[in-house]
Amino acid sequence: MPEVSAVDRDYNLWVLLHQVSDIIFNAREAELQKYGLPATQAEVLFVIKAIGDKVTPAQISRMIYRRPHSVSGIIDRMVKAGLVKKTKDLHKKNLIRVTMTAKGQQAYKQALGRKSVQKIMASLSEFERQKFKSLLETLRNKGLKELGIDPKKLPPPKFV
Amino acid sequence: MPEVSAVDRDYNLWVLLHQVSDIIFNAREAELQKYGLPATQAEVLFVIKAIGDKVTPAQISRMIYRRPHSVSGIIDRMVKAGLVKKTKDLHKKNLIRVTMTAKGQQAYKQALGRKSVQKIMASLSEFERQKFKSLLETLRNKGLKELGIDPKKLPPPKFV
Repeated sequence: MPEVSAVDRDYNLWVLLHQVSDIIFNAREAELQKYGLPATQAEVLFVIKAIGDKVTPAQISRMIYRRPHSVSGIIDRMVKAGLVKKTKDLHKKNLIRVTMTAKGQQAYKQALGRKSVQKIMASLSEFERQKFKSLLETLRNKGLKELGIDPKKLPPPKFV
Repeated sequence: MPEVSAVDRDYNLWVLLHQVSDIIFNAREAELQKYGLPATQAEVLFVIKAIGDKVTPAQISRMIYRRPHSVSGIIDRMVKAGLVKKTKDLHKKNLIRVTMTAKGQQAYKQALGRKSVQKIMASLSEFERQKFKSLLETLRNKGLKELGIDPKKLPPPKFV
């Protein structure tokens, strides 16, 4: 068997990380299917709830770490689905604010059950989850630095 | 400060995982930009190299853990870019095989440098990387079971 080089090992580790993230995403999609709510839209509802109404698309983009362009597409689909509405800021006319509609509030309540994520995370002990979190934070800070972003300006997600 | 519930903690942990995966992906995109090669297409080139030529789209889909539908779109863009070609299997006419072109081989060689991933992973010690891998594997196996997939049928990624 050929020896695995350091660069291959690191790459494999990232692919595994990527896979796990996708696997949990798919479990979440399956869970939300009965409400007809895509997992990414559920994520955005959590962000709006966390930041408060009148959040801007740029704030959402920073929180879910997607490009502004792709966030704009997600929001437009959510407007179409009647979950949020976009309004122009009263003072800065070129600033868009996003607010949850009554239908969005209802969808948020449905999305609050997150058994899929909980069940998968429960495969780690409380101690292991702490360790996992600290390893992820180290990678996150280093990764943001590599991208030229100050980690302090992008606090870790806290949806509570 | 309100107490963070267990379900919120687990959800935040997944969002963090998701973020780290995206951050490394973005660093990889930045690294590959000079070759005009999207990171996802580079991933597919690694899969073809790992499995060998004449890989099927379904095999690629399993390896990079994307839906067959989205893999099919990626492959079509790679055909258009001249990186791979699709051929019909000689015996099973409805089976598509994907092979790397000379241009694809060259792009693969350019993509072999993975300094972005290595630099970020280097923020963890060798021991921490081992621990991180084992935690991810636990989550991966549990997640696949939740999705009704036998983890043994989807071996961890090894691109060597």
